[in-house]
Amino acid sequence: MSKEIVLTGITTTGTPHLGNYVGAIRPAIEASRVDSNETYFFLADFHALIKCHDPARVQQSRLEIAATWLACGLDPEIATFYRQSDIPEIAELNWLLTCVTGKGLMNRAHAYKAAVDENLSANQDADFGVTMGLFCYPVLMSADILAFNAKKVPVGRDQIQHIEMARDIAGRFNHIFGEHFVLPEAVVGEDTALLKGLDGRKMSKSYNNTIPLFEGEKKLKKAINKIVTNLLEPGDPKDPEDSTVFEIYQAFATPEQTAEMRQKFADGIAWGQAKKELFELVNGELAEAREKYNELMANPAKVEEILQAGALKARTRAQSLLKELRESVGLVNFK
Amino acid sequence: MSKEIVLTGITTTGTPHLGNYVGAIRPAIEASRVDSNETYFFLADFHALIKCHDPARVQQSRLEIAATWLACGLDPEIATFYRQSDIPEIAELNWLLTCVTGKGLMNRAHAYKAAVDENLSANQDADFGVTMGLFCYPVLMSADILAFNAKKVPVGRDQIQHIEMARDIAGRFNHIFGEHFVLPEAVVGEDTALLKGLDGRKMSKSYNNTIPLFEGEKKLKKAINKIVTNLLEPGDPKDPEDSTVFEIYQAFATPEQTAEMRQKFADGIAWGQAKKELFELVNGELAEAREKYNELMANPAKVEEILQAGALKARTRAQSLLKELRESVGLVNFK
Repeated sequence: MSKEIVLTGITTTGTPHLGNYVGAIRPAIEASRVDSNETYFFLADFHALIKCHDPARVQQSRLEIAATWLACGLDPEIATFYRQSDIPEIAELNWLLTCVTGKGLMNRAHAYKAAVDENLSANQDADFGVTMGLFCYPVLMSADILAFNAKKVPVGRDQIQHIEMARDIAGRFNHIFGEHFVLPEAVVGEDTALLKGLDGRKMSKSYNNTIPLFEGEKKLKKAINKIVTNLLEPGDPKDPEDSTVFEIYQAFATPEQTAEMRQKFADGIAWGQAKKELFELVNGELAEAREKYNELMANPAKVEEILQAGALKARTRAQSLLKELRESVGLVNFK
Repeated sequence: MSKEIVLTGITTTGTPHLGNYVGAIRPAIEASRVDSNETYFFLADFHALIKCHDPARVQQSRLEIAATWLACGLDPEIATFYRQSDIPEIAELNWLLTCVTGKGLMNRAHAYKAAVDENLSANQDADFGVTMGLFCYPVLMSADILAFNAKKVPVGRDQIQHIEMARDIAGRFNHIFGEHFVLPEAVVGEDTALLKGLDGRKMSKSYNNTIPLFEGEKKLKKAINKIVTNLLEPGDPKDPEDSTVFEIYQAFATPEQTAEMRQKFADGIAWGQAKKELFELVNGELAEAREKYNELMANPAKVEEILQAGALKARTRAQSLLKELRESVGLVNFK
């Protein structure tokens, strides 16, 4: 039985935080260990350029994210791990897809429409400040997916539309030029909780409420101590369902540990103590990976070597598809 | 003194006709022989995919156009002659530029606006049938130009706006990421007459009024005989300024030959005789090139070899620029 191709991209603009780890990195690496999957992980550094025009940030983020995935257990011998910008076939496919994509489809993209709505309510021109990068982003994302004929794309709910667009575009290309693409499907993990941040909202860089992943024990402890709690005293029973501390604990605990902590909440554990136990649990899971991360960050050439090998692997696959696609549209060398 | 980079692209959807030869091919080849110019000629086969989804047509047109340019005297040792789709750096640059291009700029493109106007007057949705290929076309054209930092781009009047857009995009990139691009300029040849076709309108495939370039003497003669004239009899003085026969004659004649023909018109040359002389003149200029063209069409591998060598030359240049651009946006290998 042929394997199912699963593809995950990570935009290289930020530093991975605990929410990224629980929501994306850890489950993706688990998926890569499932025998029936063939996994592709890539650093979406072309996408990063849409919103980040700070070269030092993009460059640093690429390294941090690559090191994070490797430190967290991504095995480049099993998964194909590469940078988007190292695969010229993606940029080429991007153009082939551009030529069959209806502009109307892009007009309906949520991210674009949100930008337009914001402009209109500020009495601006509808497209004020909107770049072609933002507008064309779903086409490039389709190229990311279709270059490897990925079948499953794990995404957050906000990304489902983009996968539907990739399906549309693939179907359109197939209709015009013959069946070349598998229609991809979004996989939305129902059980993958979006981790809450320090203030109880979704953990996100844009809310400035993140818990760092690999910035060292001290910073981890300090962040955990800042998690907002209520004013209940030690001894007062506490509601685990209404607690960010408990939620994060649960994301790292075994069911037994979770049950124990639930009991401790009922028994009125002090917030300070609960945070201490949370820190120990999280730190325990991360300590080894953090060490690996620091090693990799100190040895970028090693990361580069891994990514170059990954690019070679990815390109071999993409090239054979692109050859077929070029033939189908009429771009064949003369013989 | 450094040479001036001149770039010309030819969309590979059709078979070159006499109008293309006089209006574009001949002057471009003349320009390539000027010592102070460094010329780039390319087959715009990625652009072809915007409007042509017939692979056999695209493929055939690529060969015909390549053979035509070579037959007409393009010297690949002097000019850099390549296919757009053989230069991955162009597709990559296309994305870098996409990220700095305002959508508002593309909204104002004449070709797009014409499509919208047509839709609206047919009570259709504004973007009905409009592909992202059509909408993004000016960005790809900017990449074609900027990948080689071309300074001069000879174009027809309908293309001036696209060069202005390439300037805008280049300026925007320079502003954000530092001075990397020369701002290109449109060169509109004032003396390059647009040749009239059989019916007296501009010679164009879409009007079905073309005179073939290399389809053989018989077809050339037949087409010339179909040029629409007025009903004046032999012996009646004829107005050269109002004659397609005279206009085409002039495009191939020396000033002396033109003066002689002008006199013959005044003296009442018969249309049949004028057409006969026109055929002889045109055929005389084309005969040798036609033979070369037929040889090349019979030997596509030879054309391929020339284009591969051209791609190598073009890529060497584009790669060094792209390396610099990648650094400027934050896509540098880890060391």
